[in-house]
Amino acid sequence: MPNVYEGMSNEELDAAIAQLEAQADELRAQNLKLDMARGKPSQQQTDLSRPMLDLINSSTKLVDEGVAVDNYGSPDGLPSARKLAAEILDVDPANVIVNGSSSVNLMHDLVAHAFTNGVAGNKPFYQQGEVKWLCPAPGYDRHFTITAHLGIKNVPVPMTDEGPDMSVVQRLVEEDPSVKGIWCVPKYSNPTGVVYSDAVVRRFAALQPAAPDFRIYWDNAYAVHTFGDEDTPLMNIFDALRGAGRTDLVYEFGSTAKVTFPSSGIAFVTASPADIADIRKAFAVQHVSPEKFTQLAHVLYLKDLAGVKEHMRKHAALLRPRFDLVEQKLTDGLGDSGVATWTHPTGGYFVSFDGPEGSARRIVKLMADLGVKLTPAGATWPYGKDPHDTNIRLAPTYPAIEDLSKALDVFVVAVRLVSAKLAKESR
Amino acid sequence: MPNVYEGMSNEELDAAIAQLEAQADELRAQNLKLDMARGKPSQQQTDLSRPMLDLINSSTKLVDEGVAVDNYGSPDGLPSARKLAAEILDVDPANVIVNGSSSVNLMHDLVAHAFTNGVAGNKPFYQQGEVKWLCPAPGYDRHFTITAHLGIKNVPVPMTDEGPDMSVVQRLVEEDPSVKGIWCVPKYSNPTGVVYSDAVVRRFAALQPAAPDFRIYWDNAYAVHTFGDEDTPLMNIFDALRGAGRTDLVYEFGSTAKVTFPSSGIAFVTASPADIADIRKAFAVQHVSPEKFTQLAHVLYLKDLAGVKEHMRKHAALLRPRFDLVEQKLTDGLGDSGVATWTHPTGGYFVSFDGPEGSARRIVKLMADLGVKLTPAGATWPYGKDPHDTNIRLAPTYPAIEDLSKALDVFVVAVRLVSAKLAKESR
Repeated sequence: MPNVYEGMSNEELDAAIAQLEAQADELRAQNLKLDMARGKPSQQQTDLSRPMLDLINSSTKLVDEGVAVDNYGSPDGLPSARKLAAEILDVDPANVIVNGSSSVNLMHDLVAHAFTNGVAGNKPFYQQGEVKWLCPAPGYDRHFTITAHLGIKNVPVPMTDEGPDMSVVQRLVEEDPSVKGIWCVPKYSNPTGVVYSDAVVRRFAALQPAAPDFRIYWDNAYAVHTFGDEDTPLMNIFDALRGAGRTDLVYEFGSTAKVTFPSSGIAFVTASPADIADIRKAFAVQHVSPEKFTQLAHVLYLKDLAGVKEHMRKHAALLRPRFDLVEQKLTDGLGDSGVATWTHPTGGYFVSFDGPEGSARRIVKLMADLGVKLTPAGATWPYGKDPHDTNIRLAPTYPAIEDLSKALDVFVVAVRLVSAKLAKESR
Repeated sequence: MPNVYEGMSNEELDAAIAQLEAQADELRAQNLKLDMARGKPSQQQTDLSRPMLDLINSSTKLVDEGVAVDNYGSPDGLPSARKLAAEILDVDPANVIVNGSSSVNLMHDLVAHAFTNGVAGNKPFYQQGEVKWLCPAPGYDRHFTITAHLGIKNVPVPMTDEGPDMSVVQRLVEEDPSVKGIWCVPKYSNPTGVVYSDAVVRRFAALQPAAPDFRIYWDNAYAVHTFGDEDTPLMNIFDALRGAGRTDLVYEFGSTAKVTFPSSGIAFVTASPADIADIRKAFAVQHVSPEKFTQLAHVLYLKDLAGVKEHMRKHAALLRPRFDLVEQKLTDGLGDSGVATWTHPTGGYFVSFDGPEGSARRIVKLMADLGVKLTPAGATWPYGKDPHDTNIRLAPTYPAIEDLSKALDVFVVAVRLVSAKLAKESR
């Protein structure tokens, strides 16, 4: 669809800008204070898990399959928590470590460990000169920050609507031994909402990395986070690996941060038996043993994968109207403008939005000026550098639905105004 | 006191060995399975904190001084938890970060961060060639493992009965810019039970390190862990620093691992405002935000320092008989032998024992053979290398008191037998 502003005469465009400026002034005068920046569950969502808080009290049996909950020990996590995590990720509990409340923390610690001590007996990264990491973009800013902070060179890889562009991934991974990892959110990807296709998962599993210490960081953060009519299944990458006759290629992560309580859920990692043994050794230095009451509470509350899914349907009921509203407001406000595209996720926490080239920073700045906080433009790219300055991550889960509605109205005006001005400036 | 076995004639010594061998055989036949290896609270001790588990339920107000407990945010920890930690360490809450359940984890992460990214704007350790760390010995094995694992050279420093030998510490810290840190357990030290004297604390505060990125890792693990008639106060090192006109020298750590639940307490770090700002930046990459329900539960249960002290008196009542028993059994069994010395702690979790030169490994091995597990000999020294092979860490807190009594009887026989054999072998 052609850009409506580019198709206007000078007079029409000036009139359109004047009208949009007037709308913006009106919004500015309302002194709004809205936030559509971070992927946070709403209060209604966290309230869903309150019943979990009644399941442990002073008379609870603090033993889990023979393991003491209330003392040191069980460095891999409680047996029952490992089983629950294994069910969520569809893997063998023997290869699962449950530790802490944050999978970002686990990912950080493993990249840091690779940097200081190496992966699977290979040299530490710091002794290997320049090291690179692939970053499908748009992607998750906290991922990119972890590798950048360690001085690892983040290399953007284009995202398609079925996952990262695998011809680019394959070339870089198979030809360049300094490429040591890739960040992936394979299901309901942050921020695009894409679920990697079976073909993409199979190509990941078939990679023949030039570096023996290359690992795929498979952050399955939204494994059970559908809000659509039905779940879009993700192929199990460990099944695909077995199919390809490979091992020792994938670290997979998950957590209940957006199932129960953000920051206070349980986090877990799984990998091949050899990789998990390597991870276990690293963790033995770093940790005494994990916090286990939270693990027990989660097992008592969620029970198993069926219990998790039942619980997630309650989240879906709260999330769906919000994502429907985003779709409706963007379609109504921008559908005929030809200035924007956006994703239509059925799970996860985000909508990925693209405006005209050179628009994203200006839109986010104008939105702030109009009282609506968005994720900083560029955040979805390594080093905050979106090469075309088009992408904005919309996070509709946290605001009250009326606030979200208002924020989206403001967004439509901001996108149109910036797009119109860009059209004028390019004449 | 002279070594009784060295003073014996050959015949007397042979007879003594034969008698001890017979005692050992008798013990071996009992197929004991006792454990005096790790510093773990007993079940009775962890049961003391069970009432804490009744304080959070589904109707609890999940807001702490305006901060949401049940969502992302407050990366430094809950305000009330920071205040509690600050009271325990007698510092300003503004300089406290409460994060996770393990202070060992915090220490690891800060050494690792210094290694990968540097301290206070200085070069990362990995770019500085050989880096050294001072290890007062006997000391805590997990400390030594953290630095050793990162390839940092652990340098032992002698312990005296008022803390590390400060003339050695001062010389190394002030003359060698590759010395970047020192491990300290300043109160009821692991394993000696020593409380650093005011003079030692003042000398630490007055250090003029050759390296700008040198920091004292002040692991105040046993800040409130007295079981004696009265507490032995430790001078506040931040007060001493102010007295010396210094800042940016100390990271202090604490936790409630041995106040409430091991692995499931709260852990905290404090430092100067500039150092805490540096730590905050590092943690911002590593963590999203800390687990906060545990923090809230601790605040509701312990309330303040007075509450902590009241709770610790209950622990003391359980610990004192155990430590009294160690003292009594060792005095009765070895007091007139001239082969051993040991410490007489009034707090903490350990007794540090020294047998004749070359005895420790043999004693620990013989004990294992007789069915009693001890901390591995050498564990209290960097790289597990006790230069005189004399030191054994006794951990009397976990076993039931009858088991402890039995284990100590076995220990007396093992020490005497190994000592007698050493006397014979040296002839």
